Amino acid sequence: MPRTITIGAAQSGPVSRSETRAEVVERLLEQMREARRRDCDLVVFTECALTAFFAHWWIDDEHELEAWFEKEMPGPETKPLFDEAQRLQIGFHLGYAELATESGRKRRFNSSVLVDKHGRIIGKHRKIHLPGHADHRPHNPFQNLEKRYFRVGDLGFQTWQAFNGVVGMCICNDRRWSETYRLLALGGAELILIGYNTPDHIPEHPEMDQHVGFQHQLCMQAGAYENGCWIVAVAKAGVEEGVSQIGLTSIIAPSGQVVAESKSLEDELIVYECDLDETRAYKTLFDFQSNRKIEHYRPITSTAGPVVPIAEESPRQDTAEKL
Amino acid sequence: MPRTITIGAAQSGPVSRSETRAEVVERLLEQMREARRRDCDLVVFTECALTAFFAHWWIDDEHELEAWFEKEMPGPETKPLFDEAQRLQIGFHLGYAELATESGRKRRFNSSVLVDKHGRIIGKHRKIHLPGHADHRPHNPFQNLEKRYFRVGDLGFQTWQAFNGVVGMCICNDRRWSETYRLLALGGAELILIGYNTPDHIPEHPEMDQHVGFQHQLCMQAGAYENGCWIVAVAKAGVEEGVSQIGLTSIIAPSGQVVAESKSLEDELIVYECDLDETRAYKTLFDFQSNRKIEHYRPITSTAGPVVPIAEESPRQDTAEKL
Repeated sequence: MPRTITIGAAQSGPVSRSETRAEVVERLLEQMREARRRDCDLVVFTECALTAFFAHWWIDDEHELEAWFEKEMPGPETKPLFDEAQRLQIGFHLGYAELATESGRKRRFNSSVLVDKHGRIIGKHRKIHLPGHADHRPHNPFQNLEKRYFRVGDLGFQTWQAFNGVVGMCICNDRRWSETYRLLALGGAELILIGYNTPDHIPEHPEMDQHVGFQHQLCMQAGAYENGCWIVAVAKAGVEEGVSQIGLTSIIAPSGQVVAESKSLEDELIVYECDLDETRAYKTLFDFQSNRKIEHYRPITSTAGPVVPIAEESPRQDTAEKL
Repeated sequence: MPRTITIGAAQSGPVSRSETRAEVVERLLEQMREARRRDCDLVVFTECALTAFFAHWWIDDEHELEAWFEKEMPGPETKPLFDEAQRLQIGFHLGYAELATESGRKRRFNSSVLVDKHGRIIGKHRKIHLPGHADHRPHNPFQNLEKRYFRVGDLGFQTWQAFNGVVGMCICNDRRWSETYRLLALGGAELILIGYNTPDHIPEHPEMDQHVGFQHQLCMQAGAYENGCWIVAVAKAGVEEGVSQIGLTSIIAPSGQVVAESKSLEDELIVYECDLDETRAYKTLFDFQSNRKIEHYRPITSTAGPVVPIAEESPRQDTAEKL
């Protein structure tokens, strides 16, 4: 069975606050149809693809906040995506703000789903590493209130047999944590799908602005190489409601190379034919089973924050080895 | 107290099989003196710096093998390095093959020591991630018999208060494992020292040769950024006993940028003034204590190798969310 999968990374340009879901879904459908015309098996949409990224501003009213979330997936406004995927026989990845009601309890997550070519949801991720803050920072040029609006995901990092391979997902800031890639690779991932909304300016650290694009790709390139995975990362790009976000939608090979990259800050589809068998050389080279020394890794799961060694009080003056 | 430390990364060119330790130590002393002239607080030598990298060939005789190892540190041949460091008031890092005799039992490790400006050993690492193989592969253009000649290190990834900061070490292939950087950063590391012998050709994977230099730096750049650390990585470079090794001795800032890099494949000292306080912005940004979600990281320490999900037998045709 062939193990190549042609993937369309469907970057979104800005979505305005006033744009309706129906209008946004129409943009996504257009990209899905283009992906099909270009022989894609899978089209990857971004994080919270259906609306403006509302975490950038303060919302006090619960009803106003909930209006930014999807209460079901698919719902009336997103069903056309599922129907069209089934009609076109194409899979898709969609990020969205999820309002989950389970046992009468409402919980809000930053989520993504993987949908097969039959329009069936086969996988779901809820973002684990929420960036930003929970407090009101009205004096910043913009805010990132993800810690206020979303719970930490409760599904871990799962993988699924799909598209003739093993697929995993993570969302935005998850990609800056090496644990993300390792956990997905320990689940056998050969392809990792990522959506992101990444401002090109960090209010608290303006000196970092010049590195934002580089650091965005750096984490994923290392994650791809060290874990023998393809990575497809898709932006919400451009200036949206006053917040300027990077594009750099990227398809990254298991070598760590960026093999395709967006050129614009608008809706833009980049397409690449990924050979999932290219992951094998790296997975063989690293051979986790033989080479990972988990007996030495304990602090990674036993302590969240650093434990700094205590300084010795006075240096000894001898040179003999004491260790 | 100032938190800048001027570091000399002392790349070694090839060391021939017939070169004596005294001859090699003289080369290292010359680099140490140059480092002092250029105001270095610390000079970093490479992995197994004292001899040719004997793991590249098959050795059957136990006595012949042991001759490549140091039985004490410092020993008669390496004491001049410690004496000169004390005289010059400069710290150093030295990689060496270690024959440890503890409770009458001999064990061989690929080790490194951190020595302060008083010539005192303050830290030691034994390489955890041994690359290569234990079996004889005489038909390869060269071998990498580290799995035969060395035991897996038994000291974990420790850190030490030194040079006005917190310092950690790892060796060569350790740098390709994201756990290495994370463990050192969980120990508070602000500066990570690495020596390596890295061939520019992988016998089993010639298609990877073109990426060797890129992948070498990629892992360290991501490790530096994701953990808010300076990294100083020092090569044994050039063609040694028929094996061609990369140079690319590198000093990497907490931004992930390579800020200094060797130009040759010979003995070469590159110097950079590292401000350890530059680590703070990244350590604050990532804020491990708040943001690492160790409850989701469990497989990293519970399983060495991957556990691949089972494919479902027959897809359901409905589109309702079942997750």
